[in-house]
Amino acid sequence: MLQKFDYKKDKNNLKSRLHDLRTQMQLKGLQGYLIPRADFFQGEYVAPHDERLAFLTGFSGSAGFCCVLIKKAAIFVDGRYRIQVKQEVPDNYEIVHWPEKQLWQWLNDNISNGVIGYDPDLHTTLEIDKIKTNLFSDNITLSKTESLIDLIWKDQPPYEHTNVIEQPQKFAGKTSLAKCKEIGEILQNENQDQCIITDPESISWLLNIRGNDVPRTPVVHACAAVDSEGKVDFFVELNKLNSYSLEKESHVTIHSFSNFRNYLRTLKGKSRLDIQKIPISIRDCLSNYVFSEDPCILPKAIKNMTEIKGTRKAHLRDGIAVSNFMAWLDTQKPGDFSEVDAVKKLENLRRDLPNFKDISFDTIAGSGPNGALPHYRVTTKTNRKVQDGEILLVDSGAQYVDGTTDITRSISIGKPSFEQKKFYTLVLKGMIAISRLRFPRGLSGRDIDALARVPLWDIGHDYDHGTGHGVGVYLSVHEGPQRISRANNVILREGMILSNEPGFYKESSFGIRIENLLLVRKAQNLKNKSNRDMLTFETLSFAPLDKKLILKNILNTEEINWINKYHKKVRSKIKIPQYNLSWFEKATRPIK
Amino acid sequence: MLQKFDYKKDKNNLKSRLHDLRTQMQLKGLQGYLIPRADFFQGEYVAPHDERLAFLTGFSGSAGFCCVLIKKAAIFVDGRYRIQVKQEVPDNYEIVHWPEKQLWQWLNDNISNGVIGYDPDLHTTLEIDKIKTNLFSDNITLSKTESLIDLIWKDQPPYEHTNVIEQPQKFAGKTSLAKCKEIGEILQNENQDQCIITDPESISWLLNIRGNDVPRTPVVHACAAVDSEGKVDFFVELNKLNSYSLEKESHVTIHSFSNFRNYLRTLKGKSRLDIQKIPISIRDCLSNYVFSEDPCILPKAIKNMTEIKGTRKAHLRDGIAVSNFMAWLDTQKPGDFSEVDAVKKLENLRRDLPNFKDISFDTIAGSGPNGALPHYRVTTKTNRKVQDGEILLVDSGAQYVDGTTDITRSISIGKPSFEQKKFYTLVLKGMIAISRLRFPRGLSGRDIDALARVPLWDIGHDYDHGTGHGVGVYLSVHEGPQRISRANNVILREGMILSNEPGFYKESSFGIRIENLLLVRKAQNLKNKSNRDMLTFETLSFAPLDKKLILKNILNTEEINWINKYHKKVRSKIKIPQYNLSWFEKATRPIK
Repeated sequence: MLQKFDYKKDKNNLKSRLHDLRTQMQLKGLQGYLIPRADFFQGEYVAPHDERLAFLTGFSGSAGFCCVLIKKAAIFVDGRYRIQVKQEVPDNYEIVHWPEKQLWQWLNDNISNGVIGYDPDLHTTLEIDKIKTNLFSDNITLSKTESLIDLIWKDQPPYEHTNVIEQPQKFAGKTSLAKCKEIGEILQNENQDQCIITDPESISWLLNIRGNDVPRTPVVHACAAVDSEGKVDFFVELNKLNSYSLEKESHVTIHSFSNFRNYLRTLKGKSRLDIQKIPISIRDCLSNYVFSEDPCILPKAIKNMTEIKGTRKAHLRDGIAVSNFMAWLDTQKPGDFSEVDAVKKLENLRRDLPNFKDISFDTIAGSGPNGALPHYRVTTKTNRKVQDGEILLVDSGAQYVDGTTDITRSISIGKPSFEQKKFYTLVLKGMIAISRLRFPRGLSGRDIDALARVPLWDIGHDYDHGTGHGVGVYLSVHEGPQRISRANNVILREGMILSNEPGFYKESSFGIRIENLLLVRKAQNLKNKSNRDMLTFETLSFAPLDKKLILKNILNTEEINWINKYHKKVRSKIKIPQYNLSWFEKATRPIK
Repeated sequence: MLQKFDYKKDKNNLKSRLHDLRTQMQLKGLQGYLIPRADFFQGEYVAPHDERLAFLTGFSGSAGFCCVLIKKAAIFVDGRYRIQVKQEVPDNYEIVHWPEKQLWQWLNDNISNGVIGYDPDLHTTLEIDKIKTNLFSDNITLSKTESLIDLIWKDQPPYEHTNVIEQPQKFAGKTSLAKCKEIGEILQNENQDQCIITDPESISWLLNIRGNDVPRTPVVHACAAVDSEGKVDFFVELNKLNSYSLEKESHVTIHSFSNFRNYLRTLKGKSRLDIQKIPISIRDCLSNYVFSEDPCILPKAIKNMTEIKGTRKAHLRDGIAVSNFMAWLDTQKPGDFSEVDAVKKLENLRRDLPNFKDISFDTIAGSGPNGALPHYRVTTKTNRKVQDGEILLVDSGAQYVDGTTDITRSISIGKPSFEQKKFYTLVLKGMIAISRLRFPRGLSGRDIDALARVPLWDIGHDYDHGTGHGVGVYLSVHEGPQRISRANNVILREGMILSNEPGFYKESSFGIRIENLLLVRKAQNLKNKSNRDMLTFETLSFAPLDKKLILKNILNTEEINWINKYHKKVRSKIKIPQYNLSWFEKATRPIK
C-alpha cells in the first residue's frame, strides 16, 4: 500500500527531544528557536529527512510551525488541524490558533527580549520580513543559525536521491526550450537579467522532468536560474541524473546542487525572486534583485492542448476505479467494513490502471462523525466500521503520467436520513451552479465562489473551506495561482484546471462534499448569438453521484437536467467491467 | 421644474474658446493644459462657476476631462458618455476611450517634450502622482498654473453662496460633538494629530449641516481640520452662515474660507490626508502628513437608527409618488405622451410630498432605444413620444430631509414582446437573488455581484455597470465606500444602504433596469438554529413591479413568493390616494 495508517507516537521521546533542543539553544545563546514544517523547497510534501516538526513535536499535519522558548513552547496550526494536534502533541506545547494569532503576537505576549534563531534555508523571505516588521520590541531579534534539530536528530533519515525522469513530449506538449524562451521573454519585458527558481513544481514543469523526491507530488528537488534568453543553469544532485540526461537540451547547463550558492554570489545583473518562495538564505546570496512572482506560475497553470487531452484521458481511467469502488461499496454489508478497507480497496483499484504512478494525496475516507472533519485521514487508531445510516465521504485522486485527478463522492450507507438528503442536495445545487456556469472573461475565483454557497447560506449554513483549488498535470494536486475562493483574485483563463468541491459538515455527525475537476474553456456561441466573450467549465471527472441522497423536489429543472446529462456522459465515457455493469447502469439512470 | 431639458450649444463659440485657451498657453510657455470636470471639492456635481469642461468643450456629462496641446486636443470619457460626447463636442477634439486609454498613454503618443499645465486646486494628489509616475519621457513635465479657463471665461458665473442649514438631531441621530469625538479616537489610534477634510459630504455629515451649493446633493462647500480630541477648525465663506450659527457647537471654531491655506501652512503635528480627495494645492500647504482614507467615510456609511428610521419613512412617501406615476402612465395613450411629460409628471408628484427638498439626480426616462442608454437624460432634442410596445425605463429619486431615495421601474407601454418579457424576468431574477440573499458577515459587494448576473450570463448576456452603489441620508445618492460591484472590496456592514439595480440593454431597441434600495441588517435566526453570524438585506423601496413584463414560467417558487410578498408589503405600506386605489390593488395582486 502507498497510503499508511500507522503512525508511531512516543510522547516520552518527544519530551526529551524538546529538552535536547533547549540545551542547544542555550549553547548558542538563543532565547527562542523556530521549527517550520517546511523544507528548502516550500512544497506541500517534505522528505522524511525534513520532517523536523514531526520529529520534535509529533505533529504530522501538512501545515504548521513551532516556536520554542527556554520556558515555553507553542505549536501554531490552522482550523484543519486543531483536533489532530491535541492528539499528537504532548501537553507541554501551547496550541495556538493560527493565522488568527500570528507568531509575532505570541512572541510579543511571551518574551520581552532575546534572540530567536531560525534556519534560513527553511523560511521564505516574506515570512521572515513579516515577523521582523511586526515584532513590537526592538529587544527581540531574529537571527540565522544552523538547523538545531539536525544537531539533536541522531537517526535523521538521509535524503533518498531518486532518479530524474523525462516527462515525454507526448505528455508535456511543449518542449523545455520553448517554455524557457517564453520565460526569457517575460524577463526581457520586465528588464530583468535572470530569475532564480527554487520551486520544484516550476522547475519540473520548465525542464519537462519528474522525480520522486517526496511522496504524492512527482517533482524533482532542484534549483535553477533562467536568463532573459531562455538559457538555464540547472542545479541538481548529480547522482539523480543516472537514468536521464539533459544533454540533448542545449539550453540547459547542469551543475552540482552544492554549487548553487557560489554561483549566485558571482551572478551579474538583476535577478528576479519570488518573495513568497525564495528561502532567505538564497536571497542573502544576491546583491542585485527584485521581487516578482515566479514567471513559471501562470504558463504552468494554463494547460496546453496535449496536457488537456492527457488529463481528460486520465480522468476517464480514474472514473473506472471510482465507479468500481462505488459498486463494491454497494455490495458491502454496513458494519462489516471499515474506513481502512475502503481506502485499500480504492487504492488497489487505481493501481491496476495504465499510467498510474501514485495516489495524488492520502485518501480521505471519513464515515459518520469522521466525515465531518474536512481533512480527516484514517489511522489504525481512528479507523471505524462504517454503519447503516451513515455517509462515507471519500476524497481521493491519483497521479497518472498524463494527468492528475482529484474527486470526492459522498455515499450513503444503508438508508439515509431526511437531513442527510437535504444537505446533500443543497451541496449538490452549489456544485451544479459552478459546473454549469457561463461567465464573462476577466473574473477571478473570488467573483464566483458565492454561487456554490447560496443554497446553504439560504438556510443559515456554510462551509469553512474554499470552493476549489488549481490542479497540475502529473504535478501537484494543489497548484496555484488560481482558486475558487474569497481570498483569490487571479483571473480565470482558458486552460486552467480547478476543483469544484462545496461541502457541508455537521460536527460529530456527518460530512458531505461533492467534487469534480473542471477545465476553464471558451463558452460556445448560443443560439441567440450574444456576442459577449464568455468562459465556461468543462467537467473532467466522471463517476456516479449517489442518487439515494438526492431530494428531487428541491432541485429545479435545469439542475435535474444537469444531473441526468452528467450521468448519461458517465455511462457513455466510463468503460466499466461487465461484472459491475448492472449496478452502473442503475446508478447512472436518469432522475425522472 | 428642477430638472432642465434644454442645453444651449454653440459650436462656433467653442472653437474660439479653444483658440483663446491656446493663446493663454503660449503666453505661459505651456505645450499642454488639463481641464478636468472637477471642482476643488471633487464631488459628482459642480457649481456653474466650475463648469469649465462644459464651457470649453460643450461636454455636459458628469465625468471626463480634456487635454489641450498646441496642435491637438482630446476629451477623455468613459463608456457611459461615448455617444453623448460626439453630439456635444466639436470635431477638433479627439475622443479618447478612458479608462482603457490613460492620459499618460495619450501624452506619450502625442508629445515628446514640453510643459503641461494644470490648476492644482482641481486635481487630487493621487491623480497628479499617477500621471507623473507614468509619463515615459523625462522631457514632459507637469506644472502648476493658475486656471487658464477662468482667464478666458468672460461671463463665468460667480459662486452663489447659499445658506448653511442645520440638519436637526431628530434626523441626524447623533450630535456633531459625538461624531467628532469618534473621528478624534480614530486619529489617536493611528497616531495622527489631525485630519484635513475637503470632502463636502464628510463635512456636512460631521457637523450636521446641509447646504445648497450644488444641485441634487445638499452639501456645504467648506473645509475642515479635525484634531485627535475632536476639535474642529471649520473653514467656510462666512456669509453662508446667515441663518445658522455653529456657536452652540463648542468643539467647532469658525474661520473664513480664505484663511484655510495659511492655517495649514502653520499647522503643527502630523496631518492625515485622503490621497484620493485632497487637491494637490492643499497637500502642498503641508509639510508633515500621511495618506490615509478620510476617517468620516465609514461612520457616515454605517447609518444610525435615526437615519434608518428616517430613510424608511422617506421611502414610504417616495413610493406614493412612484406608484401614482405608474397609475398615471397606465391612463396615458401610447404615442400621446413624451419622455419629458413623464419626467415632469413624476417630479410634480414628488414635489407635493412632505420633507421633499430636491430630486436626488436628474430623472432618467428612456423609452424604446433611449432606454438602452443606461445614463440617458432626456433633452428637448432627444425627447420622443412613448409608443405602443415600448418599455419606458424610469430611474429617479428624491432628497427628503429625512432620507435620500433612488428607484428604477421599467414599465411596458401597450403590449410587450416575448423578448422584452424574457429579459425583464431574467433581470428581475437577479434583482430578487440579491434582495433575498443571506450571507456570512465579512463579505464585500464584489463577493455577491455575480448573483445578480447569473440569469443573464446563463444565456450569454450581461450588463456593463455595477449592481449597486451606496446611498447617503439626505446627502449624496452615490455615496461610498461600499458598492455591489466587481471592483469593490469594502466589507458590507449592518446599517449600510445600497442600491440593487441589475439591468439589460439591447442597443437601439430597449432598456430594462429594476432597482430598489436595500439596508444591510443582521439576519434573523432561522428555525433550524444555525449559529452562523449572517447578514441580510431589508428592502427599503416600495412601488409595484410591472407584472405585464413577468414571464412566470421562468421563475421558481421562491422567486414567485418573493414577488407576491413584496407586492403585499407595497399594498400595506404605501398610502395611495383613493382615485388610484383600484389600479394599485390590481398592480399588487399576487401572481398565481
